Amino acid sequence: MKEINSRILLIRCPDSSGLIYKITGCLFQMGANIVNNQEFVDYPASTFFMRTEFTGPIDENMLLSQLKNLLPEGSDLNLSPLRKPRIAILVTKEAHCLGDLLIRHRFGELDMELVGVAGNRSDLEDLVNDFHLPFTLISTEDRSREEQEKELEEYLTSLDPDLIILAKYMRILSPEFVRKWDKKILNIHHSFLPAFKGARPYMQAYERGVKVIGATAHFVTENLDEGPIVVQDVIPVDHSYDPDRLFLFGRDLEKIVLAKALRLLLERRVIHFKNRTIVFE
Amino acid sequence: MKEINSRILLIRCPDSSGLIYKITGCLFQMGANIVNNQEFVDYPASTFFMRTEFTGPIDENMLLSQLKNLLPEGSDLNLSPLRKPRIAILVTKEAHCLGDLLIRHRFGELDMELVGVAGNRSDLEDLVNDFHLPFTLISTEDRSREEQEKELEEYLTSLDPDLIILAKYMRILSPEFVRKWDKKILNIHHSFLPAFKGARPYMQAYERGVKVIGATAHFVTENLDEGPIVVQDVIPVDHSYDPDRLFLFGRDLEKIVLAKALRLLLERRVIHFKNRTIVFE
Amino acid sequence: MKEINSRILLIRCPDSSGLIYKITGCLFQMGANIVNNQEFVDYPASTFFMRTEFTGPIDENMLLSQLKNLLPEGSDLNLSPLRKPRIAILVTKEAHCLGDLLIRHRFGELDMELVGVAGNRSDLEDLVNDFHLPFTLISTEDRSREEQEKELEEYLTSLDPDLIILAKYMRILSPEFVRKWDKKILNIHHSFLPAFKGARPYMQAYERGVKVIGATAHFVTENLDEGPIVVQDVIPVDHSYDPDRLFLFGRDLEKIVLAKALRLLLERRVIHFKNRTIVFE
Amino acid sequence: MKEINSRILLIRCPDSSGLIYKITGCLFQMGANIVNNQEFVDYPASTFFMRTEFTGPIDENMLLSQLKNLLPEGSDLNLSPLRKPRIAILVTKEAHCLGDLLIRHRFGELDMELVGVAGNRSDLEDLVNDFHLPFTLISTEDRSREEQEKELEEYLTSLDPDLIILAKYMRILSPEFVRKWDKKILNIHHSFLPAFKGARPYMQAYERGVKVIGATAHFVTENLDEGPIVVQDVIPVDHSYDPDRLFLFGRDLEKIVLAKALRLLLERRVIHFKNRTIVFE
Repeated sequence: MKEINSRILLIRCPDSSGLIYKITGCLFQMGANIVNNQEFVDYPASTFFMRTEFTGPIDENMLLSQLKNLLPEGSDLNLSPLRKPRIAILVTKEAHCLGDLLIRHRFGELDMELVGVAGNRSDLEDLVNDFHLPFTLISTEDRSREEQEKELEEYLTSLDPDLIILAKYMRILSPEFVRKWDKKILNIHHSFLPAFKGARPYMQAYERGVKVIGATAHFVTENLDEGPIVVQDVIPVDHSYDPDRLFLFGRDLEKIVLAKALRLLLERRVIHFKNRTIVFE
Repeated sequence: MKEINSRILLIRCPDSSGLIYKITGCLFQMGANIVNNQEFVDYPASTFFMRTEFTGPIDENMLLSQLKNLLPEGSDLNLSPLRKPRIAILVTKEAHCLGDLLIRHRFGELDMELVGVAGNRSDLEDLVNDFHLPFTLISTEDRSREEQEKELEEYLTSLDPDLIILAKYMRILSPEFVRKWDKKILNIHHSFLPAFKGARPYMQAYERGVKVIGATAHFVTENLDEGPIVVQDVIPVDHSYDPDRLFLFGRDLEKIVLAKALRLLLERRVIHFKNRTIVFE
Repeated sequence: MKEINSRILLIRCPDSSGLIYKITGCLFQMGANIVNNQEFVDYPASTFFMRTEFTGPIDENMLLSQLKNLLPEGSDLNLSPLRKPRIAILVTKEAHCLGDLLIRHRFGELDMELVGVAGNRSDLEDLVNDFHLPFTLISTEDRSREEQEKELEEYLTSLDPDLIILAKYMRILSPEFVRKWDKKILNIHHSFLPAFKGARPYMQAYERGVKVIGATAHFVTENLDEGPIVVQDVIPVDHSYDPDRLFLFGRDLEKIVLAKALRLLLERRVIHFKNRTIVFE
Repeated sequence: MKEINSRILLIRCPDSSGLIYKITGCLFQMGANIVNNQEFVDYPASTFFMRTEFTGPIDENMLLSQLKNLLPEGSDLNLSPLRKPRIAILVTKEAHCLGDLLIRHRFGELDMELVGVAGNRSDLEDLVNDFHLPFTLISTEDRSREEQEKELEEYLTSLDPDLIILAKYMRILSPEFVRKWDKKILNIHHSFLPAFKGARPYMQAYERGVKVIGATAHFVTENLDEGPIVVQDVIPVDHSYDPDRLFLFGRDLEKIVLAKALRLLLERRVIHFKNRTIVFE
């Protein structure tokens, strides 16, 4: 878990000699105290990754500009802001992921500001209201996908979220929409991707006769169910699991996997690279 | 585990009323003592499955003919023979699955007769010989696939195996070959199928950035890596697993999954149905 | 999952020849249709167990009396009533297990009547009320354990529950109390029992340096944390998990394990035997 | 996996400010190239741990003396030697762990020199010989435990092993013996410790009715089954697993857990601390 009042610096840069020494030296000389440090080098790609959690009163701009001078061309630096991350949740009608997030949020497990919950149906409105939160209906009924997505986009733009959670939001988002919130949309898919992309993965799993089922939390990209994976997990099943039973047991997997991915993002433990993720657990 | 001297009856038939009563009654009246009984009904397919392990001196032909009279048209009955199953193993150059099976066989864990080990390369000849077993080289070098497969077919025909284990045999078998040994060829594939079919699954897994890898023991059919699955298992991985490390950790998974599937088949716990398996563990 | 309108017969009796034949015959002749059947024989204890789910309009008393005549002396028969099981939940201050059960109950995943939620503190009162359910405070403050337990007993007696769920109820119940609700109290303990019985299991786990932590749903008996186990599961941990982090990750395990055990009990899949459980999944 | 020709530095020292900066600076200035770096701070114990894998021609004595000057009083430095670790294996009669290690060793998976295999019985002599390795019988028959242990100690002393693997060696070693090879004896115990210490853990597990069984690789200390844990893993079981079946399935777990722990030690990924281990995977 994250220390109170600590800040987190994520670095992705071309690999070169002495990087850890240079970065930690910069922090040390500015009076920061490193609480937690993790590094990884992708040798085939010659790329260095680092997550540093530190405390101490540092000048943010000075730190970033000094690091930029130290690090190779093409470095990507990301320092956590002082405010809590702003999170929006989109749902359709299934309650298990949303319910799980609402309970965790209510009892302080997730260090975030929940800025809004919207659904394309009203099934979960009462649940959200019972948690004393506003629910926004952005209906898909009786109108075009474009119209609905435009309203959704305006809604989200007004919330200015750092992250949008698709907690069983069962509508496909347009490439334009996805591009606008690039690397900011986290989805939960009910299969161990890349197996069973697309619709009805439990039915596909049943028909293939698999002996494990899975769930995958991944970033949404323009290619359906092909974005970078953050968390995956599976459970064993057998021939007695019909699609309904797969669905029932899969729900527990989905909510745990989604919550775990969200926690990793809130704690800034994830760095994108190509279509993969570096996850400093 | 199977009782000593017990026999196992596998039944697959159209579902109808009173099946368990009728079958167990037939066994009871012939003096059989049921040691273990398991049933399953696939309701969408209206099909009944049963595995009965029993002891007692029964007349095999009489049992089967009485059951045929009792059961609906289209029933499939399968009674274990008195002799041990005859198993052949095919390999290429990777030792982990073969080595694991040889150790298990040597120390009596697998209730089978190991009738032969053949390879399309000679890499594992010494290992097999050190276990005091003959190794047959059926080389793929300097000749056509057809020629090699013909020799392999003659070799296997002479062994008359009940089951052929592909313990990392890295050659694709022709549809004719597969048809000849229908439902008798068990393969180990190093991914959680249906993800990463075909060649180099660990490289595919690495490039997709998955957070679990798997292994699948499945029957070989004419469609590559699409036959009925018997056992699957997975292990968690992270960004630090390059293809070599996936390969290293995957080996442990592969050998355990293959051995588990083989044990299930030796204990006659598997019934085929469509492209799936009913596994009475 | 249970079929709608089906009933479930649980049998535990001394093993003898032809039991499956006799029991299924009795059901068949009374016009019942077996939907699902599972058996198990504990050979060292020479005891037979069976779970039969059936449909069809049968005379309950006639079925039970006919079965009693058929079965050996000492048989234990248990037929599910037509009404839903009555469930009471006891809590203290941790929200994760209760919250998970409330969400599941609200959206119809648990086939039960939730007859009451009580706590020895009021921390979770608002949560329960927000789910439109009454919360009863049976405080442990400023009075003796005996007094508090007496009130709790009266409360539960008035509810007449089939099952009492200790969803992180952190008070030890007296032997008299436990005896009164024999085999009707299900607890969730945050370790893989029998390791780390008693208080503060995560701290114990941390100090022992284990590499897996677990959760155990078990029946409460007079001996603390020694009752029959229904469900256990574990997650891997490493040296970086301090007690707080074990606690955080353990919560997810606890709620899933407790909910799974409750579902098994609601579907009448559990038979007690000695200090163990037969679980027909 | 370890890079070829790399060396590994393990550090355990009192936590203080700027440690990573100072250590990596020392390596950088001596011309070492860090291939892999991992750190951990145990805050309650105010202790810092680091594993650094580096390449480059450095003067070993100079590196260690410079680091000692840099680091706080009470630091513990450990640099991998250039030669391969020398490993001795002790067995009794069970073949699965030894067989697994022999296969791995034969095919180059374990980067070690296997200096000897000894047993207190001769059951596994043929297996070892078939792998073209000498087997030493140090019998427990017809003599005192002291006498046998004395011979064993002489045998091991002559081998000068870096690590002694108890691959199902079923004799308890005396405190004097254990002290002599302090932190150099790795044992595999067939339960998830601390549950089921001592004799016959599978029988204990059966009688307790657990729903998972485990295996634990741990260092041997004077207190039986209480040494620091390196690796643990579990598998799910149910009521149908009698002790024989637990034993059968447990074997697969034991061999995988032991091999995994050995690999971690060969790659110098384990640092002792109190009765725990820091494992940099």
